[in-house]
Amino acid sequence: MSITGRLTLPTDVDMVEETIRLKNLLGADALRDCDGTQMPEELLTQDAKKYATYYTTRKDNDWANANPDEVQQEYLISERVTAKDVKLRIKLMKGFHTEQLKVNDMDDPKRWWEVIDRTTGEIVPPEQWEYDKATGEVELESIKYHQYTVSFLAFLIWDPVHMYNFITNDWKDAPHQLTYDVRQPKTQEYVKKKLKKWCEDNPDIDVVRFTTFFHQFTLTFDEKKREKYVEWFGYSASVSPYILEKFEKWAGYKFRPEFIVDEGYHNSMFRVPSKEFKDFIEFQQIEVSKLAKELVDIVHSYGKEAMMFLGDHWIGTEPFGKYFDKIGLDAVVGSVGDGVTLRMISDIKGVKYTEGRLLPYFFPDVFCEGGDPIGEARENWMKARRAILRSPLDRIGYGGYLKLASEWPGFIEEIQHVVDDFRLIHENMQGTKSYVAPFKVGILNCWGNLRRWMANQVHHAIWHREIYSYVGILECLSGMPFDVEFITFDEVKEGIPEDIKVIINAGDAYTAFSGAENWKDEKVVTAIREFVDKGGGFIGVGEPTACQFQGRYFQLSDVLGVDREMDFSLSTDKYNELNAEHFILEDIKGSSALGSSGLGEIDFGEGMSRIYAQGENYQILDMDGEYCRLVVNEYGKGRSVYFAGLPYSPQNCRILLRAIYYAAGMEEEMKKFYVTNVDTEVTVFEKTGKIAIINNSKEARHTELYVEGKMKYSLDLEPMEMRWVDM
Amino acid sequence: MSITGRLTLPTDVDMVEETIRLKNLLGADALRDCDGTQMPEELLTQDAKKYATYYTTRKDNDWANANPDEVQQEYLISERVTAKDVKLRIKLMKGFHTEQLKVNDMDDPKRWWEVIDRTTGEIVPPEQWEYDKATGEVELESIKYHQYTVSFLAFLIWDPVHMYNFITNDWKDAPHQLTYDVRQPKTQEYVKKKLKKWCEDNPDIDVVRFTTFFHQFTLTFDEKKREKYVEWFGYSASVSPYILEKFEKWAGYKFRPEFIVDEGYHNSMFRVPSKEFKDFIEFQQIEVSKLAKELVDIVHSYGKEAMMFLGDHWIGTEPFGKYFDKIGLDAVVGSVGDGVTLRMISDIKGVKYTEGRLLPYFFPDVFCEGGDPIGEARENWMKARRAILRSPLDRIGYGGYLKLASEWPGFIEEIQHVVDDFRLIHENMQGTKSYVAPFKVGILNCWGNLRRWMANQVHHAIWHREIYSYVGILECLSGMPFDVEFITFDEVKEGIPEDIKVIINAGDAYTAFSGAENWKDEKVVTAIREFVDKGGGFIGVGEPTACQFQGRYFQLSDVLGVDREMDFSLSTDKYNELNAEHFILEDIKGSSALGSSGLGEIDFGEGMSRIYAQGENYQILDMDGEYCRLVVNEYGKGRSVYFAGLPYSPQNCRILLRAIYYAAGMEEEMKKFYVTNVDTEVTVFEKTGKIAIINNSKEARHTELYVEGKMKYSLDLEPMEMRWVDM
Repeated sequence: MSITGRLTLPTDVDMVEETIRLKNLLGADALRDCDGTQMPEELLTQDAKKYATYYTTRKDNDWANANPDEVQQEYLISERVTAKDVKLRIKLMKGFHTEQLKVNDMDDPKRWWEVIDRTTGEIVPPEQWEYDKATGEVELESIKYHQYTVSFLAFLIWDPVHMYNFITNDWKDAPHQLTYDVRQPKTQEYVKKKLKKWCEDNPDIDVVRFTTFFHQFTLTFDEKKREKYVEWFGYSASVSPYILEKFEKWAGYKFRPEFIVDEGYHNSMFRVPSKEFKDFIEFQQIEVSKLAKELVDIVHSYGKEAMMFLGDHWIGTEPFGKYFDKIGLDAVVGSVGDGVTLRMISDIKGVKYTEGRLLPYFFPDVFCEGGDPIGEARENWMKARRAILRSPLDRIGYGGYLKLASEWPGFIEEIQHVVDDFRLIHENMQGTKSYVAPFKVGILNCWGNLRRWMANQVHHAIWHREIYSYVGILECLSGMPFDVEFITFDEVKEGIPEDIKVIINAGDAYTAFSGAENWKDEKVVTAIREFVDKGGGFIGVGEPTACQFQGRYFQLSDVLGVDREMDFSLSTDKYNELNAEHFILEDIKGSSALGSSGLGEIDFGEGMSRIYAQGENYQILDMDGEYCRLVVNEYGKGRSVYFAGLPYSPQNCRILLRAIYYAAGMEEEMKKFYVTNVDTEVTVFEKTGKIAIINNSKEARHTELYVEGKMKYSLDLEPMEMRWVDM
Repeated sequence: MSITGRLTLPTDVDMVEETIRLKNLLGADALRDCDGTQMPEELLTQDAKKYATYYTTRKDNDWANANPDEVQQEYLISERVTAKDVKLRIKLMKGFHTEQLKVNDMDDPKRWWEVIDRTTGEIVPPEQWEYDKATGEVELESIKYHQYTVSFLAFLIWDPVHMYNFITNDWKDAPHQLTYDVRQPKTQEYVKKKLKKWCEDNPDIDVVRFTTFFHQFTLTFDEKKREKYVEWFGYSASVSPYILEKFEKWAGYKFRPEFIVDEGYHNSMFRVPSKEFKDFIEFQQIEVSKLAKELVDIVHSYGKEAMMFLGDHWIGTEPFGKYFDKIGLDAVVGSVGDGVTLRMISDIKGVKYTEGRLLPYFFPDVFCEGGDPIGEARENWMKARRAILRSPLDRIGYGGYLKLASEWPGFIEEIQHVVDDFRLIHENMQGTKSYVAPFKVGILNCWGNLRRWMANQVHHAIWHREIYSYVGILECLSGMPFDVEFITFDEVKEGIPEDIKVIINAGDAYTAFSGAENWKDEKVVTAIREFVDKGGGFIGVGEPTACQFQGRYFQLSDVLGVDREMDFSLSTDKYNELNAEHFILEDIKGSSALGSSGLGEIDFGEGMSRIYAQGENYQILDMDGEYCRLVVNEYGKGRSVYFAGLPYSPQNCRILLRAIYYAAGMEEEMKKFYVTNVDTEVTVFEKTGKIAIINNSKEARHTELYVEGKMKYSLDLEPMEMRWVDM
C-alpha cells in the first residue's frame, strides 16, 4: 500500500527515533502529545502536522491559587439523612473526596443552596437551617423520620480528569491540578492572553487540540478515591453563581439547585429532561459557543488550526446542537469505543475534518501482563470499520505512551492492517456516499438529534447490564445502509418528517429513551398511529411507549400487538403461540426449526420479561416460555416489530436489517445489494462503482453477493477481511 | 388407628355398595353429592351426616326463562378499538361467548353504560353515541386515532361454573343452566319459598351446603369457549341496576361503570382498590350477609345445618370481613390447594366448624392415563399438613366421582394415610393452640385482613410466573410458628399494633401488595421508620415500598439498605460485595462456602433484578452478578431483610424462619423448639405435652430435636412422616 496520511501518532520525549521510524512505517502525517507526555523538541521539524494538547481550565495552579473565587464549581447533593429527632445535622462532604472538592462557603449558602425534605419533596425554608462552617455541617429543623438532603456548591480543587489519569496511571509526584472557570471575567481575560502567548511561543505547532473548553462532564470521587459518580453528559460541574445569575436573566425565572441535582440523579440522560434543565443546556450552549469561538479565533489568528476533543470539558458544546458550528472549529477528535461512538464523531457537521482516536489507548492498564491490546484493537476496528463505511472519519489516530505500543510484539503490525483498511476505504469511496435505503429511520426519544448516537448511554461505550440490549440497536445501525435521524416527541407532534419511514422507540419504561409521560400525550400517540396506519413502520424495543394509563402499559399496544404484564391483567387469559416462519428470520440458521420456544437461537440480551401478544394481527416469532420476545404486527397499511432486546452481534444486525425493511414494507429493496452470510455485510459506492464486503467474524467466511437479485460474486473471506469488488 | 370421623366422602347413584365399604374403611362420618352427581336414596339412612349441595342461583331454567329481567348481570368492557375516522362502531360481544352472555338492552344504556376515550380517559357524552340493537354495536362520534371502549351490562345466560364444569367434564346433553339474581325482589321471594320446600322435601339431609349464595366470582369465556377472564376475587358479576340504585343511595354518590370495569382490569386484586370499589365491597357485604342470613335461618328452622362453600358464588360474603359472622353459618367448606388456601378456610371465625376439600378432586382430568392422583394427593397433603398443625381445619373431605378414586390402584390407601395423620393431629392437640413466637408478623398491603392469606393470588392456588415468588412467603408462613396479621396502610397510619414485631411487604411495584402511592404518604413511611428504629423488623420481598419519588424507587431504601436501579442512578457507582456469613443462612448447606456469587444455592424464584445495597449498615448475603438478592440492614435498634423473591420450599421456610427471628432481634427465641434438618419442622402443643416433627420431603430424613437449647430426640423419619414425641 503506497498511500500515506490520515494518521496521527502520539509521541514522547524519550521516543524521538522510534517516533520517526513508526511515522515512516505507518505513513503517519501528524504527531501529538498527550496528558502526561510531551512533544520532543527534535520532532518539531518533522514533515508532519504537530498537534498540541491544550488545556484551558487547568495546568496553572498559580492562577487558580491566586483566584480562589474563580475556581470551577459543581453542584453536589449530600447523603440522604433520615431525621430521628426535630434537629438534624448533615455533614456535607461525607462520601466525597476532600482532595477533589471543597464546600463553597464564599457565596451565600442561603442564596445558592437548598435543603429539601425528600419525604415530601418540599423545600425547607432558609430560616430553618444554618451552615456551620466549623464542622462542615448543615443543621436544620427537621420532622421526625423525614429524610433530608442539602444541595450545595463546591469548588473543584482537583481537575476530575487529571485526578482520574493520576489514579489510573498511578502517578506519584505530580501536583494535583486545580481548576479555574474560563467563563468568569478575570479568568476569561487571563486565559485569552495566555492562549495568545502560547501561540506565539509555539510557532511549530499546527493544531491546537482543545481538551476541551470550559466545563468538565460530571465526575466525582468518593472518600476512598473510587469513582463515585460519572455521567459523560452531566452538567453539574458547569455552574457558578456568576453563570447562574446570567442564566436567571436569560431564562426569566429564578434558578433552583434542584434543576441541577435533580433528586440526586444529576440529570442523568435517562431522566426525562425537565424544561428548566433543557433551558440550562440551551443557555450554556449559547454562552460556551460564543466564548469558545473567541479562543478559536485567537488560534486562527496565528495561522493554526483549532481542534476540539469530544470529551472531558466538552459540556455545553453539544456537537449536534444548533450553536456548535458557530464556534468555527477546524476539527473534532474523539475516542472511538465502538460504531456508536464513532458516529458521534463522524456525523458532526460544521468542521473541516473529524478524527477518531482508536482503542486501545497505549496505557499500562491494557499493555500489561494479562492484557490483550491486539485483541482489543481488532474488536474495536471491526466495530469501527463498518461505521466508517457508512459515515467516514477523515482521520484516525492513537493516544497514550508510544513506547508501550512499539514494544508489544505484533501490535504495530496490527495497526498497519487497520491503517491500510482505513486508507483503502477513502481511496475507493472518493468522498462519495455509500448506498442507503430510500427512506430514513427515526430514533424517537426525549433527546432527539441533540444527543445523536448517544441514546441509552451512561459513559461513552461503557457496558452496563441495563443498557447493552438497547445500545445494540444503535451499534447495529451505526454500520447499516440507513440514514438515521434522532427525533423528539415535540417533533413528532409537529409532524413526522416525510422521509422517515420507520420509527424506533427503545428503552426502559419511564426513561427519556422510552418516553414516559409523553405517551399520555394524545398528540404523540395519534401522530404515530396515523403514521403507521398509513404505511409507516414502528419498531419497539424493551419497554417502548410504556406508561401505565387507562388500562394499558404500552400506550401503543394496538400498534405493537404486544403489552407487558404488570400483574393487573394476570386474570386475562393469553393464548400466545409461536410461529417463527417469517421474512425477518429467513437468514437465521435453523429458524424454520426454532421449535416450540426458540430459546437460545436469538440473543435478546437482558431481554424484557412478561411480554404478551394481543389483538388480531400479530405473529409471534420468538417466545420465552409463555411470553414473547419477538413479535410482528400489522396495523392498517403499516407494520410494527417488537424486540425484547437486541444487543449488538452480526446476527442481530441482520435481524434488524430485515426488521427495518419489513416494517417499511420494502422487503424487495433489501435485495438490491445483499450478502448471504450473516457474518458479512456489503457497502456499495455507486458513484465510484466499488463494493466493499466485510467479514465481521474472526473466522473465515464464505458469502455470496447479490446485486439486484442476481448472484454476482461468490467470495471466500479471510478472518476480518474487507474485500473490494467492482460493481 | 381406631379413631373415626372428621371425614366427608362424595357419593353417586351408582356407588351405593362401594360408598358403604369406603365409609367404613376410612371411618367417614359424612356423605355428600356434588355438581353432576346425586345422593342415592339408599344411603339416606346411613349412619352419617348427609350433605346436599344447594344452588340458590341456578338449576331452575323455568324460573330464569320466566323472569328474564332478574337474570344475573355482569359488567363487561368491549374490546379497545382505535378510531380511524370520526365515526366508530364497536361490536360489544366481540371476544365473548354468546352462549354465556347477552347484552342487557332492557335497562337504559345511557343510564348504565359508559363509552370512554382511553386515549384521554374522558367519558364520551351519551349524546355522542347510540346503541344499535340490530347489529349489537355502539356507534360513536370519535376523534381520529383515539382508542375507545364501551362498558356495558350483560345477562349471564349460562352460569359460569356450570359452563366450566360442562366444558371440563365434556358434558354433552346437559341443558345450560341459566342464572337468576336472588338479590332482586321476585327471585328473592321465590328462592326463599323454594328453599323451604326443599327442606321439607329432604328430611334426611343434615347439612345444606350452599354453593354458594348470590354472586359468582368473575369468570367469562371467549368465542372459542376458552376461559377469557378469571378473577376469584372479582365483583364484576355482582351487579344489576336494581343493586346499583341501592348502592347509590347507600353511598351518596353516583355510580359509574368504571368503578367495576376499572380500565378493563376489573379490579384485579393487584390493583390498588379505589375508594369507590372498597365502598362497593362494603355495601355488598352488608346486603349479602343480610340476605344470606335469611336463607340460613330457613335452613335452621328445619333443624338442619347451613354450610357455605368458599368459592363459586362467594362474592360479597368476605369471610374475613366484618359482616360474615352475622350470617349465622354453621360451617364453611373450601378447596385446599396448598397451605395458603387451607388457612383461608381454617382461620375463618364465626362458624362452628371448617372443612377442607383436599385435592385431587375425583375428576377425569387427573384420574386418567398420564395423571398422577397419588402424587397430587401427597404434594397437597404435605403442604396442608403443616398448615393444619398451626391452624387446624375441623374436618377434611373429598369431592367428585367416587368411582374414579375407588378404582385407582393404591389411591384409597393413600387417603387412609392422610386421614390417619389428620385425626392424630386432633387427638394430640386436643383443641389447644400450638406454640408460636412471642410476637406477631404483619403482612402489609392495601387489602389487609379482609383478604387474609389471599395476597398476590390470581385464582385460588393457581401458579403464575409473576406471583409464585411472593405467594411463597405466605405458603411458608402458613405452616410456621407465628401468628400472622394482615394489615393495611390505613392501619399503619393509625398506629402499628403493639404485638406486631415484624412487618412484611411483598409484591411488584405499583400493585396493591407492594402499596404504590401509599409509599408517598409521609404518615406511612414515618410510622414504619419509627417502628424499625425502635426495634421492629421489616422484611421486603421483590419491590417493597416501591414508588418512584424524590430520588428513590424504594421509599424505605434507608430502612431496607437497598434500592432498585431503574436506570436513573446508573451513573452512581456501586461497590457491593458479598458476605454470606450470617445467622439467616446458618442452616443452609454450604452457605459458608457460597463463594463469590452464591448463585444457585438459594431459590429466589423469578427474583427481582437490579437490586443494589446502599447506606452503611447493610450486609449482602447473596448476589446475582453485580446485584443483590438477599440483604440485611441495621436501622437504629431494628433490622430489615430484603429478598429478591422467596418461592415455597422447605429450605426457604427455614430461611424465612431465621429471617423473621433475626428481624425481630430474637434469634435466641428461635431455639426454644428447633429441628436441625431443614426439610423437617416441629410443632409443639405445650398444653398437651405433645410435639409433632414432620418430614416435608419425599425422602427419609435424619433430624435432631432441640428444646430450650438441649438436644432432646435424635430421629430418623420415613419419607413424609409425621412423628409425635412427648415434651
